Amino acid sequence: MSRFDIAIIGTGPAGLSAAITATIRNKKVLLLGSRDLTLKLQKAHEIQNYLGFPAVSGADLAAAFQRHIDQMGIEITEKRINAVYAMGDYFALQSGDEMLEASAVILATGVVQGKPLPGEEALLGHGVSYCATCDAPLYRGKRAAVIGYSPKEEAEAAFLAEVCSEVLYFPVYKEETSLPESVRVIREKVTGIENTAEGRVVKTAENGYTVDGVFVLREAVAPGQLVPGLEVDGSHVAVNRKMEASIPGIFACGDIAGAPYQYIKAAGEGNVAALSAVSYLDQLKRAQ
Amino acid sequence: MSRFDIAIIGTGPAGLSAAITATIRNKKVLLLGSRDLTLKLQKAHEIQNYLGFPAVSGADLAAAFQRHIDQMGIEITEKRINAVYAMGDYFALQSGDEMLEASAVILATGVVQGKPLPGEEALLGHGVSYCATCDAPLYRGKRAAVIGYSPKEEAEAAFLAEVCSEVLYFPVYKEETSLPESVRVIREKVTGIENTAEGRVVKTAENGYTVDGVFVLREAVAPGQLVPGLEVDGSHVAVNRKMEASIPGIFACGDIAGAPYQYIKAAGEGNVAALSAVSYLDQLKRAQ
Repeated sequence: MSRFDIAIIGTGPAGLSAAITATIRNKKVLLLGSRDLTLKLQKAHEIQNYLGFPAVSGADLAAAFQRHIDQMGIEITEKRINAVYAMGDYFALQSGDEMLEASAVILATGVVQGKPLPGEEALLGHGVSYCATCDAPLYRGKRAAVIGYSPKEEAEAAFLAEVCSEVLYFPVYKEETSLPESVRVIREKVTGIENTAEGRVVKTAENGYTVDGVFVLREAVAPGQLVPGLEVDGSHVAVNRKMEASIPGIFACGDIAGAPYQYIKAAGEGNVAALSAVSYLDQLKRAQ
Repeated sequence: MSRFDIAIIGTGPAGLSAAITATIRNKKVLLLGSRDLTLKLQKAHEIQNYLGFPAVSGADLAAAFQRHIDQMGIEITEKRINAVYAMGDYFALQSGDEMLEASAVILATGVVQGKPLPGEEALLGHGVSYCATCDAPLYRGKRAAVIGYSPKEEAEAAFLAEVCSEVLYFPVYKEETSLPESVRVIREKVTGIENTAEGRVVKTAENGYTVDGVFVLREAVAPGQLVPGLEVDGSHVAVNRKMEASIPGIFACGDIAGAPYQYIKAAGEGNVAALSAVSYLDQLKRAQ
């Protein structure tokens, strides 16, 4: 397997900025995330304080970002990373049952929007999962619920429908769903997840739905779950001014590195994270 | 005398970004500096990593910044500040024999680049550059000279060696160099830079070396005694991740707050400094 110099997880302003600077510095970059860039940016009505773009719509700013990476030949790999493991002088990035390798990793995944559901954290790994690709085999022939925070998660639900006997889908958004007929879409507000003798119960304001496994699928995953052992500061990765995280070779930038949640701050931090990663790689090379 | 909420010293990307965000937050802003924005930006030949502006000239990027502040009605006051004094719940800014007042101060003055070499300023943007990361692509397959004022600059020279056909390195220090073999180290005192029909000539006491591009890379020089009593970190203002300096109410952003010296990093930090200053003003108000 070829090893990348720098894997960048996230295609918001922080990740794109990091990818651009790392590419200029001749590093072999793996940029992972959505080709739509972030939904949050795309949907922003008007951004007033991204210096150079007065009163710009999110869609127009995203288009400018897209032109920038296109012009530099930077490609986005649409793979969801479930976990990052420190392996000594490199990192293993787990994407479903595939493993990718990089010498340094820049986390630019954004922050988990909102609080976890009641019961979610306590049941994680005990009937609650964040990764359909990883854990679907556990629920072969069984009943699964998917709580999807964006239309992108429908693909995961469709995949589960091929494996599970029954799939319930709870969209946490207003857009119409596009799912196989076998998936039962339930438009009720999820209030929590409970463990009972019969199975996991997805509680809504109106009802309770008993299943074997519950998949909670959000755009961003909590940093401590993504990189086991990483020092966090609340819902953020703890970083210094160089955007270095607690594990050498791991860097973070943008919203995941802390407030304020601002596009220009994220882009600036992406640049710093990339240059710090380049320094780290230089040191790594000299040490070998 | 009317007291401003926030005085911002410097009209590079950090100062402009801070002014925009502070203005959005309804603060009474005094933006001090050159109406030409920074000379360094105006003269930059091509900037590749300001996200949203692929391969933009310094002049074009400065024009976009100018449009942004114009559109928001932000004006630049061309006064040189000689000293900033902490007066308790406000700051006195000395400009010649005039005193200005502000409740918070954002330092965005950039770093003093030390005494320039003869010919350096005239050729800036015309074969002379301060940033290897930014301008290396201009010299792909060409000859470059690096005048490095500290061992830290060797990493930049090593990077240039990956891109250029030949790299000459002039260390302006005594320490032994640690550079790739392909970099030619020349221990001669640089006396100036000249433009000739053959290219740029790095003049030393003994010889002249003709190259295509010259990189003058200095460590930042101490920010000076602008704010008496302010804690510094080497040549920079010591700040935390919120861009707070050691004196409450003083913030710093951009090059003066530390390396890397990058436009997008400066703009991002300006945004953070402004939001931190807004929080500080809120606290100040509550305390009164």
